[in-house]
Parts: sequence; structure tokens; C-alpha cells
Amino acid sequence: MIVALAGGVGGAKLAQGLALALPAGDLTVVANTADDFDLYGLRICPDLDTVLYTLAGLADPVQGWGIADDTFHTLGAIARYGREPWFRLGDQDFATHVLRTERLRQGATLTQVIAEFAAALGVQTRLLPMTDDPVATFVDTPEGRLGFQDYFVARRQADDVLGVVFAGADAARLPIGVAAAMAEAELIVICPSNPIVSIGPILAVPGLRQALLAARAPVVAVSPIVGGKALKGPADRMLATLGHEVSAAGVASLYAPDGLVDGLVIDVQDRALATRIESLGMRVLVTPTIMGGAEDRRRLAEETLGFGRTLATENPSAPLAAGEVGA
Amino acid sequence: MIVALAGGVGGAKLAQGLALALPAGDLTVVANTADDFDLYGLRICPDLDTVLYTLAGLADPVQGWGIADDTFHTLGAIARYGREPWFRLGDQDFATHVLRTERLRQGATLTQVIAEFAAALGVQTRLLPMTDDPVATFVDTPEGRLGFQDYFVARRQADDVLGVVFAGADAARLPIGVAAAMAEAELIVICPSNPIVSIGPILAVPGLRQALLAARAPVVAVSPIVGGKALKGPADRMLATLGHEVSAAGVASLYAPDGLVDGLVIDVQDRALATRIESLGMRVLVTPTIMGGAEDRRRLAEETLGFGRTLATENPSAPLAAGEVGA
Repeated sequence: MIVALAGGVGGAKLAQGLALALPAGDLTVVANTADDFDLYGLRICPDLDTVLYTLAGLADPVQGWGIADDTFHTLGAIARYGREPWFRLGDQDFATHVLRTERLRQGATLTQVIAEFAAALGVQTRLLPMTDDPVATFVDTPEGRLGFQDYFVARRQADDVLGVVFAGADAARLPIGVAAAMAEAELIVICPSNPIVSIGPILAVPGLRQALLAARAPVVAVSPIVGGKALKGPADRMLATLGHEVSAAGVASLYAPDGLVDGLVIDVQDRALATRIESLGMRVLVTPTIMGGAEDRRRLAEETLGFGRTLATENPSAPLAAGEVGA
Repeated sequence: MIVALAGGVGGAKLAQGLALALPAGDLTVVANTADDFDLYGLRICPDLDTVLYTLAGLADPVQGWGIADDTFHTLGAIARYGREPWFRLGDQDFATHVLRTERLRQGATLTQVIAEFAAALGVQTRLLPMTDDPVATFVDTPEGRLGFQDYFVARRQADDVLGVVFAGADAARLPIGVAAAMAEAELIVICPSNPIVSIGPILAVPGLRQALLAARAPVVAVSPIVGGKALKGPADRMLATLGHEVSAAGVASLYAPDGLVDGLVIDVQDRALATRIESLGMRVLVTPTIMGGAEDRRRLAEETLGFGRTLATENPSAPLAAGEVGA
């Protein structure tokens, strides 16, 4: 069993690669829900849906989110009623939000709803939200505190991020099975998602970080920063304004404390950073990490799995545990 | 001021004709809400929406309900999740149901929501639901009691209707302004909608029938039965299985008790029924009543308005009031 932690597009791509590389049912993906929000009375879960659509083979291959060839007639009609169509929801995508909202109002948990959706779409990977409880990311900017989608979509990530808050995270509970899956996993993969606002909220759910540290399996992260740039989204600018180095080494320094991560996969462009990253206490795999289609995704997944196996072999009798690592 | 009572497609056509024939703002339409139901967690109001779309010039010109040139991508995606797409909701139509459900959950009344929609769509007619309270039509059939949309859409009106129940009607309240509008109206028009399940529920809201009987204005109905057939829907079969004559005279006999209606507009095909209908205590206007496009609708509306004016002139000093009419 492999457990992957994922945000949106980049995480979904590697999750798909892992699903392709592993026997059916051997993968559990835990996705960020702190970007979730309500729009037009519907519950929208951008990262979960991106992973779901990608695993189901429905995702838009160009933009990475939404459904391929989706149309926007519903949103156009919403605009006719005078409502701003600032968040681009496609007609097929609306079906997901409508049915999810119905099921949540009926009392289902998000975990149940996503399991139902995955089953209906033939997805064999176990896809779990990081929590069924409400957690919401806010970013502090020179203009004040902004809701995540206001910052991310409405204001197009134009504001400098000076701080991040995961409201509700302290009281959030891991869904049933997440801690057990991590305890039993052979490898835990942190996908190439934004370490601040995609992986950050997952790690902020009480018990998740402890489960990572206690897991006997190696923890391998894949850097979302390549050549000093985020492959997608504002991770590079966010690292800079939060005072981190904008590089795979900056990502490594975020994951280094407590020995959280045992290995980092970095791109061939960042080969020169390998020694510095290893000095932070983790092993490094250098390989092409920019994923295009399914073949790229599968290859990176296989290399990441192989890297993880090497780490497990190197250190078979000394699994990292919370008590053993320094501050 | 003119007040019209309307169900779905036929009612919407005459309502549009009246809106075209009258100065802007002089028309109030009260629409049936007993067909309303919840689907996928959304509140659907078929008759109100048909009137709204028709008045806004958005309605599908062929089928009469839904939005012209609407597409069905959302419904297709709902089916992908294993849910039966038995009720045909278009992508643009979904916008109406999503936004209505949001506003109702925020605490708005249906009256408020429809007023907001009408304003956004540039509709100058005042469109009101018959009530903001829940009323639901059930039909009794040889197969048992069926919810209205189950009978009407899912089972395609194949069951014999042996009885009709408007659940909740006893406790329903007229929206603010309906009784006053009827008291002040110059004419009240009962549109050519199904007298049993479209006009019937409106008349079942406590106070509505009394307001009709007390109004100083004449009440004119337009027969939805032409040549012994319903122009649309199951009104003809429903009249038959409920023991009524399937003709304009059958419609007249439904509206005759208590002198509810002062005049009936019947089609030229039904000219021979005029004398019998007049013997029931109402005047008759014979004219082509089958409405195609806007010109037909406006002409029938103008003739109905003229007929109403004649009735008012004939009997200016003796308005019908509840106390004056026999059982």
C-alpha cells in the first residue's frame, strides 16, 4: 500500500502516475480540502475534484483542472441573473457540486461522497479528503486577510502572501482509515503540490504529521519547484514573500524539520542543488519531473516508488519515529 | 391592473400575450407551485419557471417549457454518477434551480426569489407564486398515490387519475399583495391551463377563491380544451377519469359553481357548445384560441381583455361577491 498526499493539478498528475504504476487498489490519496468553499450554495472542492477527475481520466488535459471539453452554459445563465461568474465552473463540473451538496445536506460525510463518486466513475484508487471537518485557508496580504479562492482565482494571485492561516485545522479530525493507512504503508509520497497552501493544510490536521513521523515507511516528496519556478500556481512567489528560498532546496528546507521527509525528488535542472539538499538530512533523486501525459506521470511515479524502495532498504531497521528525530 | 392565474405552457403563452397587450407593469401573474419538487437537492418550480422564461423571451418555442437551445451536459454528468436523469433539466435551466435553492436556503421567500429573477431578466410583469408555503399535488391512480412529477414526467401521464390531493394547501397562505391585486383588478383571467392540477391548486389556497368571488372585476377563463382534446398535457384524460365531460363545456362546469367565472373564451371549433355553456351562468366568447407565436398570443389576450371589458360594462353595478351567489 502506498499513501500519497496531494493538492490540485501537480498532485493529481503524480497520483495518476502512481495509480497507473501500482496494482489496482494499492493506492490511497489524501487530498487537501482547505481550498473548499461554497459558491451559489454549492460545495466546491477544487483539489479533491481535480484528483478525482484526473484519476477518472476526465480531467482537462491542458489546464489540468475541470473536465475535458466541458462547456459553460450554466455559468452563462448564472451571469444572466446578475451574478458574477468569477469562478469557472463547467456544466459537467456543476453535476459534481450539485450532487455533493445534496449528499452533504443529507448527512453524508465528504469521505463518503467522494467514495461514491469514485466508485461511479470507476476509480479504483482510494481517494480521501484530509478531513471531513471544515478547514479554510486564508492568506494575509498587504490588502488584508483574503479567503483562498478570493486570492487565488478572483484576484489572480496578484497579492503578496505574507502569512497563511488554516482556519478550523486545530479542531479537524482525520477521516477514519488515514492514520492506519499511513502506519501500514510501504511508502508515503508527498506529491509536487504547493508546500504552503496544498500540503501545508494536510500536515496541519492534528494527527497527520504525527502519523507521517511515526510511519515505518519512508516519506518521499517531489519538488513542485523546478528551475526556481513553480510549474503551476503561485508557489514560487509565495515562497519568496514568506522568506523561503525559491528553489527545490527551499522546498527541502520546509520538509526537513523533524526529519519529516526522507527523500526529495528534484528535477534534472536542479541537479546542482542535490548536495545542499542532502545536507538537510534527506536523500535526493534527480530525474525529469515535468509531467506531460500519462507516460510521463507513470515514469515519474515508478522512479519515485523505486527511490522509496531504496530508502527503505538502506534503513530497514531504523524507521523514523517522532521520538527519534531532532528538532 | 389585470391579474392572471396560470399553470405551465398554455398559461405562460396567454400571460405573454397579456404582457404584450398591456402597458408595462399592468399585469400580475399568479402561478401554480403545487408541481414544485426537489431534485438533486435543488428546488424545481416548473410552472413558475415556464411563465418566467416565456415572459423573458427565453422559453423554448417548440416545447414551451425550458430555455430555447438549452443543452444537457450537466444532466449527462449527473447520469455518469449513476443518477437517473428522468427529469429533463437543461444547463441554463440548472442556473435557475441552483440560484433559487441558494436564495431559499438563505431565507428568501419564493416570492422574493422570483421577483429577483424577473428583475434580472428584464420582466416587467409582476410574477407571483400562488403561495410561499409548501403545497404538493398528488394524484390517486389505480397504482396508488403518486407524486405529481412521478405521474407527469417519470410515468408520462400513463396512469388514470382517479383523484387529486393538494397536500399542504389548507395551511398555505397567499403571498402579500395577491388578494389586494385581485380586489383592485379590472379583470381577472384564468389562463388556458389544466383546470384540475394547474388552476385547481391555485384555487385551493385559502383566500384565493374568496378573493375571486369578492373581486369587483369580471373573471374570464380561457378553455384549455379545444375540440375535445387538451392542447398539451393530460387535462383531457384527467377530466374523463374524474367523471367530467371532456370539452369546453366540461371546463365550464368546473368553473361554474358559485358563479366563480363570469365568462369563458372557447375555440371556434367548439362554437356549438356556446349555448350550453351560457346556460351554466356565464357569457361565452368564441374565437381562435390555439396560440402559436407572439402575435397569436397578443391577439387572444386582446380579445380576452375586450371580452372582459364587455362583461364589466354589462354588469357595472352588480359585481359578483361571495354573499350574492348561490351554491
